[in-house]
Amino acid sequence: MDPRIRTHAEVIVDHSTRIESGDNVVISMPAVAEDLAVALHELLGDRGANPVYLNNSERASRAFLRASDDEDFETPAHRLALFEEADAFVIARGGPNVSEQGDVSPETNAAYRRAVRPVLDERLEKRWCLTQYPSSGHAQLAGMSTEAYENFVWDAVTLDWEAQRDHQARMVEILDGADEVRIRSGDETDVTMSVAGNPTINDYGEHNLPGGEVFTAPVRESVNGRVHFDLPLYRKGKEITNARLRFEDGYVVDHSAEQNEDVLTGILDTDDGARYLGELGIGMNRSIDRFTYNMLFDEKMGDTVHMAVGNAYADTVGEGNERNESAEHVDMIVDMSEESTIEVDGEVVQRNGTFVFEDGFE
Amino acid sequence: MDPRIRTHAEVIVDHSTRIESGDNVVISMPAVAEDLAVALHELLGDRGANPVYLNNSERASRAFLRASDDEDFETPAHRLALFEEADAFVIARGGPNVSEQGDVSPETNAAYRRAVRPVLDERLEKRWCLTQYPSSGHAQLAGMSTEAYENFVWDAVTLDWEAQRDHQARMVEILDGADEVRIRSGDETDVTMSVAGNPTINDYGEHNLPGGEVFTAPVRESVNGRVHFDLPLYRKGKEITNARLRFEDGYVVDHSAEQNEDVLTGILDTDDGARYLGELGIGMNRSIDRFTYNMLFDEKMGDTVHMAVGNAYADTVGEGNERNESAEHVDMIVDMSEESTIEVDGEVVQRNGTFVFEDGFE
Repeated sequence: MDPRIRTHAEVIVDHSTRIESGDNVVISMPAVAEDLAVALHELLGDRGANPVYLNNSERASRAFLRASDDEDFETPAHRLALFEEADAFVIARGGPNVSEQGDVSPETNAAYRRAVRPVLDERLEKRWCLTQYPSSGHAQLAGMSTEAYENFVWDAVTLDWEAQRDHQARMVEILDGADEVRIRSGDETDVTMSVAGNPTINDYGEHNLPGGEVFTAPVRESVNGRVHFDLPLYRKGKEITNARLRFEDGYVVDHSAEQNEDVLTGILDTDDGARYLGELGIGMNRSIDRFTYNMLFDEKMGDTVHMAVGNAYADTVGEGNERNESAEHVDMIVDMSEESTIEVDGEVVQRNGTFVFEDGFE
Repeated sequence: MDPRIRTHAEVIVDHSTRIESGDNVVISMPAVAEDLAVALHELLGDRGANPVYLNNSERASRAFLRASDDEDFETPAHRLALFEEADAFVIARGGPNVSEQGDVSPETNAAYRRAVRPVLDERLEKRWCLTQYPSSGHAQLAGMSTEAYENFVWDAVTLDWEAQRDHQARMVEILDGADEVRIRSGDETDVTMSVAGNPTINDYGEHNLPGGEVFTAPVRESVNGRVHFDLPLYRKGKEITNARLRFEDGYVVDHSAEQNEDVLTGILDTDDGARYLGELGIGMNRSIDRFTYNMLFDEKMGDTVHMAVGNAYADTVGEGNERNESAEHVDMIVDMSEESTIEVDGEVVQRNGTFVFEDGFE
């Protein structure tokens, strides 16, 4: 086993989820990530924690979803019970074929996500970590050899997370207590929103591994303007390019995409909450130096911001503010490296990717 | 996917576990059996049932068990909750290396089994099916090419189970209501036991797939005589050959084995119940035509009987009879194809493998 897999497992167990003796842990991984699962089992045994190991097989999920009648979906009581009794949850992406679910209809996906919503909610209340196994499928998606992609992933997950936390804390300070955020980029992005009362989270490799962003929730009905997401997003095997959204009082009143617009429409039509923003995030991880068509990495890239339609994380919504709820949470990215600014309460805090607290800011 | 995998899945879903709409099903399989899991997911989707898919990884289990402190094991509440809410359970054996757990100590295995006993008990109360995936590991154990082993497994599991049930019912009729069973084979096997009051079970591919035996429990202290188990048994990576047991009033008073006698001694010394028989079984599946070092198949072979030291199945013990209880249940096989008879209440019902109700019986 590559020794970096054991290091990766140590970061998950000791940094991201802080496993302790007696913890009931659910591990969910594709079959090709068995080495990482083995390393995790070894650490859980050593720590006196109890694993349940799910095979997160996209082939199996696809077969199930395609054969199902959308009307039949119900919340699976056994899956819910498993997570109710769990203390921590570790999930790794990384199958052999990222297009595996490409022929499941968006309607079926949406219906299923609605049915398992209570399970997802339960998971989010635990200590959890979403990470990546450097599989051939994601390497191919990134246009990289498997070995180069392994280096990319293992470098990214074994960052000095304490130093990264301190760097990001500067931006958290700016957003916490702020009211209006305005994001402008090129000719087509000019959006304002309030974050008043909503806490900003410093993501330094806990829930997401790699981490490297700060994020909060916009006040639900405060978003106005339009956004051109000039970086693509990959969704169930389909690439959505040049998505454009227009907001009025928080609600997406207009949308388009150059490619796979119907997939975007399916996302927005999932439920009422899918037409409101659930997240505003600012990518701050400069060790992620290339776009790999993988949101777990892409949204953390330096010189980017992202917004997610759908569910807001509970810990980003302040008391008294309404939390946007949805079965969806889909991130979309804007490149901020050129002709771009982030303003907070009227002050420019980032210009063309450089923060006000960094050298080179003008 | 080999079309026989879909047939295998159909037998599991429709015959062995009788899955219905709304059933919560747990599927536990090694990673190499993903095709079977995919076929099962497709059928569960079609039937409106809900899968949870566990990766039954022996590498992960080994890593966990070796790293654990035996004192730390406790019943994992999340695993227990999963099975409490399940209606059916499908588990397939068949990893790439049958010796994967060969370096886990027997003490650790025993301590873990005690901790998860409530989970096992819960599973046994559901509709459940134990089956086999034709993996390279078990093919190697059988001394067969993987393709020949695939043919062997898929032929065995896709038998005409209704016809097999009717065939076996003839033998159930003979044993139900009988008192004394005497088994003789060659010079070294001559044993008598009572089965009075104990029901005989007709196993035609439900809990075990393949099925193909009828079995009951001997009355605990009625067994007298000696048995030479001329077919080997494989136990935690060790082969026990030519085991010999001598019984007095049910108790094993004398034992030997040509190879790994100490492993046999360890089994018999587990607890008091491990020195009494818990099962008498008669193999009746002639599609299993060779010995493959895999008890799930071997005990069903035509022309064999098997006896298990240790725990008796509750449903094979009649009211008023004592159930033999033990942490062990170890099956051992006698070849009955030559110089052998089974007598029931003084009448020969099988000679050299041929039953009294079959053509060719003399």
